[in-house]
Amino acid sequence: MLEQLKAEVCRANLMLKEYGLITLTWGNVSAISNDGQYVIIKPSGVSYDGMTADMMVVTDIDGNVIEGNLRPSSDLATHLELYRNYPEIKSVVHTHSRWATAMAQAESDIPCFGTTHADHFYGAVPCTRHLSAEEINTEYELNTGKVIVETLNGLHIDPMAVPAVLVCKHGPFTWGQTPKKAVENALVLEECAYMSYISKTVTYGKVEPAPQVLQDKHYFRKHGANAYYGQK
Amino acid sequence: MLEQLKAEVCRANLMLKEYGLITLTWGNVSAISNDGQYVIIKPSGVSYDGMTADMMVVTDIDGNVIEGNLRPSSDLATHLELYRNYPEIKSVVHTHSRWATAMAQAESDIPCFGTTHADHFYGAVPCTRHLSAEEINTEYELNTGKVIVETLNGLHIDPMAVPAVLVCKHGPFTWGQTPKKAVENALVLEECAYMSYISKTVTYGKVEPAPQVLQDKHYFRKHGANAYYGQK
Amino acid sequence: MLEQLKAEVCRANLMLKEYGLITLTWGNVSAISNDGQYVIIKPSGVSYDGMTADMMVVTDIDGNVIEGNLRPSSDLATHLELYRNYPEIKSVVHTHSRWATAMAQAESDIPCFGTTHADHFYGAVPCTRHLSAEEINTEYELNTGKVIVETLNGLHIDPMAVPAVLVCKHGPFTWGQTPKKAVENALVLEECAYMSYISKTVTYGKVEPAPQVLQDKHYFRKHGANAYYGQK
Amino acid sequence: MLEQLKAEVCRANLMLKEYGLITLTWGNVSAISNDGQYVIIKPSGVSYDGMTADMMVVTDIDGNVIEGNLRPSSDLATHLELYRNYPEIKSVVHTHSRWATAMAQAESDIPCFGTTHADHFYGAVPCTRHLSAEEINTEYELNTGKVIVETLNGLHIDPMAVPAVLVCKHGPFTWGQTPKKAVENALVLEECAYMSYISKTVTYGKVEPAPQVLQDKHYFRKHGANAYYGQK
Repeated sequence: MLEQLKAEVCRANLMLKEYGLITLTWGNVSAISNDGQYVIIKPSGVSYDGMTADMMVVTDIDGNVIEGNLRPSSDLATHLELYRNYPEIKSVVHTHSRWATAMAQAESDIPCFGTTHADHFYGAVPCTRHLSAEEINTEYELNTGKVIVETLNGLHIDPMAVPAVLVCKHGPFTWGQTPKKAVENALVLEECAYMSYISKTVTYGKVEPAPQVLQDKHYFRKHGANAYYGQK
Repeated sequence: MLEQLKAEVCRANLMLKEYGLITLTWGNVSAISNDGQYVIIKPSGVSYDGMTADMMVVTDIDGNVIEGNLRPSSDLATHLELYRNYPEIKSVVHTHSRWATAMAQAESDIPCFGTTHADHFYGAVPCTRHLSAEEINTEYELNTGKVIVETLNGLHIDPMAVPAVLVCKHGPFTWGQTPKKAVENALVLEECAYMSYISKTVTYGKVEPAPQVLQDKHYFRKHGANAYYGQK
Repeated sequence: MLEQLKAEVCRANLMLKEYGLITLTWGNVSAISNDGQYVIIKPSGVSYDGMTADMMVVTDIDGNVIEGNLRPSSDLATHLELYRNYPEIKSVVHTHSRWATAMAQAESDIPCFGTTHADHFYGAVPCTRHLSAEEINTEYELNTGKVIVETLNGLHIDPMAVPAVLVCKHGPFTWGQTPKKAVENALVLEECAYMSYISKTVTYGKVEPAPQVLQDKHYFRKHGANAYYGQK
Repeated sequence: MLEQLKAEVCRANLMLKEYGLITLTWGNVSAISNDGQYVIIKPSGVSYDGMTADMMVVTDIDGNVIEGNLRPSSDLATHLELYRNYPEIKSVVHTHSRWATAMAQAESDIPCFGTTHADHFYGAVPCTRHLSAEEINTEYELNTGKVIVETLNGLHIDPMAVPAVLVCKHGPFTWGQTPKKAVENALVLEECAYMSYISKTVTYGKVEPAPQVLQDKHYFRKHGANAYYGQK
C-alpha cells in the first residue's frame, strides 16, 4: 500500500544523509497519507546504506503497525502527535544535525539574525522547555511531541510559518507539506543554526535580530498570496 | 541571442555550487553584454541540478524580459543598479555563503587582516548601513542596489579594487570583469570572512589589520601596471 | 591464522579513514581473539592507502609478534593493558580525531550535554590525569594503558557503558564488542566533542549537563534488558 | 632535465589541492636538486587543474630561469633563501591554508598543546616578526625568506626539528627532505593550528603547553637515533 509515498519517504531519508545531516542512523523522516489515516516512517536503527522503500513501516495514526517487517523508529509517537495536532503537516523530520543539536543542548532559540533565516522561518526557531521527570519516565516520545505542540501553540502562529522546533537538550524536529520540503527545512535550520553561532560569537553575544520590517519583507516575498520569489 | 554569454553565466552559477557557496537555490550570477544593453541572469528559485544555459533569462537594462520562459532572479534589480552605476562591472554574484553572510548578520566589515585578503581586496570589505523601513517596503531590491552603490561610493575607490560588499543583515554581493572572476571573488570573500572570524576570536578581538605598506605590496603585485604575479 | 578477524580489523582501520577521523597514519584499531590469546593490530606508521588484511600483525597478550612481517603499532602496549583488564572489551581504537583530541589538549572531560551523547555514553567521557615524568620515561605506552584503566575504574561503572577515554594532552581511545562498534564509538565521540565545543562556547561556559533522568532514559532505551531502540 | 624531480614537485603541488590546503592558485611547492644547483618550482598563478610536470620551472640557485616557458612562482626568492641557508632542506611549501594563515594573521605562535603536535614539531611553531616598510618595499620576497631564517636561527635548533614557520600577517611555509614530506608537514601544521584554536578558545586561553617530558617522548619516539615508530 501507499507505494509512492513509501518511495518518497525513503528518498527523503537518503537526502538527509546526502545533505550531511546524519551520523550513523541518527534521524528519521515520516509522512502521513492524504486521507490522514496512515503514517509511513523509517524503521528504527537501520543503516542508510542499502535502505529501500519496502523497508519503510506503515502504521495507523495511533502507531499500530499495518505493514512492514521492521520496527518503526522509536520516535514514531513524537511524529504522530504532530500529525494529530496539525493536519497541515504532511511530513516530519528528526535529526541530530550538529549545529541545531548543539543549540538545543545550549537550551537556546535560534533568533532571526538575517534574511537567510527570514526567507524560511517567520521569527525565531524556539527551543522547548525541559520535559519533567514524569514526562520522561512515562510515554517519553509522546510527551516529546506534546512539548513541541505546547511550544508551537505558544507562538500563536501558523505552524507552517515556523516549521521547526528544537527539543531542549535533544535536537531539531522540522516539518513540511512534503517529505522533500521537510528535509529541506532541516537543512535550512542547520545552516541558520551554524550562521547564528558565528554571528553570536564574533560579536560576543551583541548581535541583534534582523528588523521586523526586513523579516516581513523576506518572509512574504517567498510565502503567501503576494510571494514573487521563484516560478509561478 | 548571446548564447556564449548565457553559457558562461550558467557555468558560473554551477561553479558557485561546486565551490560550496550555495545551499539549495540561494544565489545567482548575472552578466551584462559588452554593449551594455542586455543582462543575463539565473532564473528565480530554480534548482542547480540540471540547470542549462537555455534556462538563463535575458533582460534589458531596465529589467524587462527579452528572452526566456522563466522569471529572472528576484534580485535582478540589485544587479541592474550595479551595472548602471559602474560600467566596468561586467558580472555580479549574490550568495548566502556561510561566513560572509554571518558577518553581514553581525553588521561587521571584513577588515584586511593579512595578505590573503590584500591579494584580492584593497582594504576592508565594507558592510552597508541598514535599509530604512521605507526602502524595504518600496522597491526593496532596487534599494538594496542603491545602498551598495552608496557604500562603494563612500570608499572613494575604484569599485573593481574592492569587488565585494556585505549587505547588512543579508549577505554578500561580489563582481568582476567576467562571470568566472566574479564567482572567484565570492569564493575569496568567503575564505577571508572565515579567516577573519578565526583571527578575531582567537585574539578576543585584539587582532589588528595588516600594515598599509604590506596591503599595498600584495595588492599591487597582483593588480595594475606594476603587477608581477601570474603569467604575462 | 585468524583470517576473518584480520579482515575485520583491516576494514575497521579503513572505516576510520572513511569517517574522516584520520590524518596521514595517525590511528589504529586492534581486536582480541575470542579465546583471549591473540591480538591483531594495524602495523606502525603504514599508509591507509592500499592497506590489506595480510599486513595486520598478530601478537600474543604480552605483545610478542606471532605472525606478520611488519612492526605492530607503537601503541600496542596500551591496547593490551585494556584487554588484560576488561575481558568484555574485544576491540580498541585510537585516533587523533580533531575535536576529541583538542578537548584532550584542553584537559577537559566531555560532559553529557544532550541526548546524542546519552544515547552512547552513560555520563561524561573522562579525561585522564597527566602521566608523571617517570611514567612517560619508562614503559610509556603501557603506562598510558594503566592511566586509562585507573580513570575507568574511578568511574565505578561498567567500562562498556562509557566506551571512551581521553588521554590528557594526547587523544581519544575507544572500544567495543567488535571492531566496527569500537570505530563507531570513535565517530560518536568525535561528534559529541564537536557539539560540546559549540554548546560550551555559545553559552560562554554556562551550559549544563542534561538532567540525569533524561540521560537515563536515552541510555537505557538503547542499552540493556529494557532497550527498545533498533530491531530485535 | 631533472624529469623525475619535476614529476615529484608537480605531484606534491597536486597533493596540496587534494589535502584541501589550497584555494584557487594560492600555494606552491619547490624542490632543490641533490647537487644544490637547481631549483624546480610551480609556475606563478597557474591553475591546479591540468597541471603537468613539464609546466614546472627550473631555475638556478640565484633564481635565473634555466628551463620552462612559464614564470616561476612569485615566492621563488623566499624558497631560495631557505635553500641557501639550510642545505638539509630539500623541498619548500607555501600555502594560505585556512587555520595556519588565520593564526599568522593573529600574529600568534602555534604552541605545542599535545602529542599530535609533538610527534611532528619539536616545540612551538613560531610566527615571525613584522617585516619593516623597507623590507617590504625592496626585495620583498627575499626579505620574507630572511625573516624566516632569522626566526629559525633564533630557535637555536635544527631547522628540520621545527619544519614550519608562520610569516606574520601572511601565512605558513613548511619544508622537508622530500616534496611529499614538505607537503605532509603543511597538512600537519594545518591540523595542529586548527586543534590549537579549539583548545585555546574552549578554555578561554587557559590551555597550557604539553609538559616538556611528554613533548620529548613523542618527538624522539618518531625522530632520531632512538625512534621506534613506524617500520625499519
